[in-house]
Amino acid sequence: MTSKLELLSNFRIVLCQTSHPGNIGAAARAMKTMGLQHLYLVQPKKFPHAEATALSVGATDVLENARVCETLAEALTGCAFAIGLSARKRQLSHELLDARQAAQHAAQVSSTQQVALVFGTEMSGLSNAELDLCQMLAMIPADPEFSSLNLAAAVQVMCYEVRMALLDGRMTIAPSDEPLATNEDLEMLYRHMEETLIRIGFLNPAAPGRLMQRLRRLYARARPEKEEVNILRGILTHTNEPRPNKQD
Amino acid sequence: MTSKLELLSNFRIVLCQTSHPGNIGAAARAMKTMGLQHLYLVQPKKFPHAEATALSVGATDVLENARVCETLAEALTGCAFAIGLSARKRQLSHELLDARQAAQHAAQVSSTQQVALVFGTEMSGLSNAELDLCQMLAMIPADPEFSSLNLAAAVQVMCYEVRMALLDGRMTIAPSDEPLATNEDLEMLYRHMEETLIRIGFLNPAAPGRLMQRLRRLYARARPEKEEVNILRGILTHTNEPRPNKQD
Repeated sequence: MTSKLELLSNFRIVLCQTSHPGNIGAAARAMKTMGLQHLYLVQPKKFPHAEATALSVGATDVLENARVCETLAEALTGCAFAIGLSARKRQLSHELLDARQAAQHAAQVSSTQQVALVFGTEMSGLSNAELDLCQMLAMIPADPEFSSLNLAAAVQVMCYEVRMALLDGRMTIAPSDEPLATNEDLEMLYRHMEETLIRIGFLNPAAPGRLMQRLRRLYARARPEKEEVNILRGILTHTNEPRPNKQD
Repeated sequence: MTSKLELLSNFRIVLCQTSHPGNIGAAARAMKTMGLQHLYLVQPKKFPHAEATALSVGATDVLENARVCETLAEALTGCAFAIGLSARKRQLSHELLDARQAAQHAAQVSSTQQVALVFGTEMSGLSNAELDLCQMLAMIPADPEFSSLNLAAAVQVMCYEVRMALLDGRMTIAPSDEPLATNEDLEMLYRHMEETLIRIGFLNPAAPGRLMQRLRRLYARARPEKEEVNILRGILTHTNEPRPNKQD
């Protein structure tokens, strides 16, 4: 798992002719949250810039190591595969994939090669000359009536998809520090519960219906922790005790 | 397809105690790019605010229709299902899913019920009291060493995942307006190519090897348009013509 995420170092984000330095900073932050480090800037209008630094928050290292290039070709040096981001369907013969498919493809290529994700200007995206240097087009599926994602938001989505692709589409969720109830714990709970329900007259053992099955399903869905089972059994024990006002 | 995207109207984004009005505006833009409309703000520090409007760009309608609430409970009125976003794994008994799984779950629920995606403050996320009102926790898989997504970036990723879930994980890419070459077109191309290669002495018909198969595969991968096949055949025709300096 960790070794696959190391492939993130084979990715670079290339921003072409970005107008607003704040977008460069926000893009750097977006990259770093997903574990990407290599930022290339083709003719940024203003860089370095205080606004870029401010919006990068803790990702100043990404900005400091960013490479400023004169041309997209220069920014793609050493790259085997460049994916251009497009906000619209173009009349071109490029292969066009959605963001997820493109990221999955890029993740495969990254196991042996450097991959670039290339973003155009805020106003007009990538030029045709820039697209000619890309091997594939990717599109983030947006509402056709309002399809203009902020540049850093688009970088966030693509970096997220790349990370997800390297995680094989699924985050591994570390088990809770709280130990889950074992099957034995649960069976003891259900037995305890059944006895209690009979004792309080809620469950008729001669005609039990499906009550216990329904309760089992309910608790199974909750995947209770050991401690929670202890709490439930504490309640049952308490329920089982003779009531103070009961004569027996 | 379109009808499934109509379920986006069953989603609401709830931002709790947001500090920076710019983040509210950027979140509104992020929502609108993915087709979400309903924004709820629980005790925003500053709203309405010029910075929110500026960063919403074309999504001022989302801001204008935003509902400002005193409590999260009020913002969740009418909602059957609330998913809280968490930047870290918490010591809680909530079900925790990654962003994709949570969005898929939410998409299912949205076919019959209102669903809320709930985001906490920029600094500390959701409080425990707020989490108690959520039925599920979702986490955007981030680099553990730098896991702090910008609020609007997190909204962008979640709205993107919801849209993708309603699209069944795949954008439908409308076919190019350019008609693709038919199988017949391609067969005529390959026949033309083979004849030409034999005529120019590149292909020995007595020992053809696998040349034509390799060329077929190459062109098949490119999925050529009709017009492109015409261009290739134009080249072949030209190649077939007697050279001006040839004596025959």
